[in-house]
Amino acid sequence: MQLDLRLTDSPIPYPPRPWPNDTGAGAVAEFYGIVRGVEEGRALRALRYEAYADMAEREIRRLLGELAARHPCRRVAVIHRLGLVPVGEAAIYVRVESAHRAEAFALLQDFMDRLKQEVPIWKAEAIPQTQAGA
Amino acid sequence: MQLDLRLTDSPIPYPPRPWPNDTGAGAVAEFYGIVRGVEEGRALRALRYEAYADMAEREIRRLLGELAARHPCRRVAVIHRLGLVPVGEAAIYVRVESAHRAEAFALLQDFMDRLKQEVPIWKAEAIPQTQAGA
Repeated sequence: MQLDLRLTDSPIPYPPRPWPNDTGAGAVAEFYGIVRGVEEGRALRALRYEAYADMAEREIRRLLGELAARHPCRRVAVIHRLGLVPVGEAAIYVRVESAHRAEAFALLQDFMDRLKQEVPIWKAEAIPQTQAGA
Repeated sequence: MQLDLRLTDSPIPYPPRPWPNDTGAGAVAEFYGIVRGVEEGRALRALRYEAYADMAEREIRRLLGELAARHPCRRVAVIHRLGLVPVGEAAIYVRVESAHRAEAFALLQDFMDRLKQEVPIWKAEAIPQTQAGA
């Protein structure tokens, strides 16, 4: 399985990658996790994501290796944004290419479910200065 | 739930739609079903999709309405290509936007599973003239 992994302080463009019709895949599944304007009932302007980048990358590779052994896929791309992510922008993008759709969906969902538990990337609400100082 | 549905004889571009950050969605899941070069062990150059367009659209709307009652989503886009679709090109594109990812994945997968059984769109291998006449 090819892996294209990137942690970045920049906005994730749309689409994040060119069209990938070079692996013979029959299924391409993509997911964007977007910062919402409401978190647990409170209005929000942004989230801040922080990570030890080396450790986070290592854990993402380990997790994907484990998942790919169960759900064989041709290629996976992961882009995780770090730093301040405003409401309406993507914090994470994942693309999975596989022969058939079952593996792509299984890998993508298992990855998202386990990412938060197993990968050291933390998120915090970014509180506007005016509120923080009040 | 908003629905953006299109059956088309033209190639599905990438990305098929502009970035949709206007529904307050926290999850955007996209799927492309691509024609593969091998079908049941035989080499293939293209598939041909045919439909009674009105009936197919009606059945897609009915199916999505049923699924959205179970998995509430903000917006769904479906583009299904008809006619000849060469290997490596997408025959179908589906995008689901929802508050959280669980509903998006559930609706997307249920839709793909039921589409082939319930919607009158047929596919056939497109056999090159040289072989057909042999």
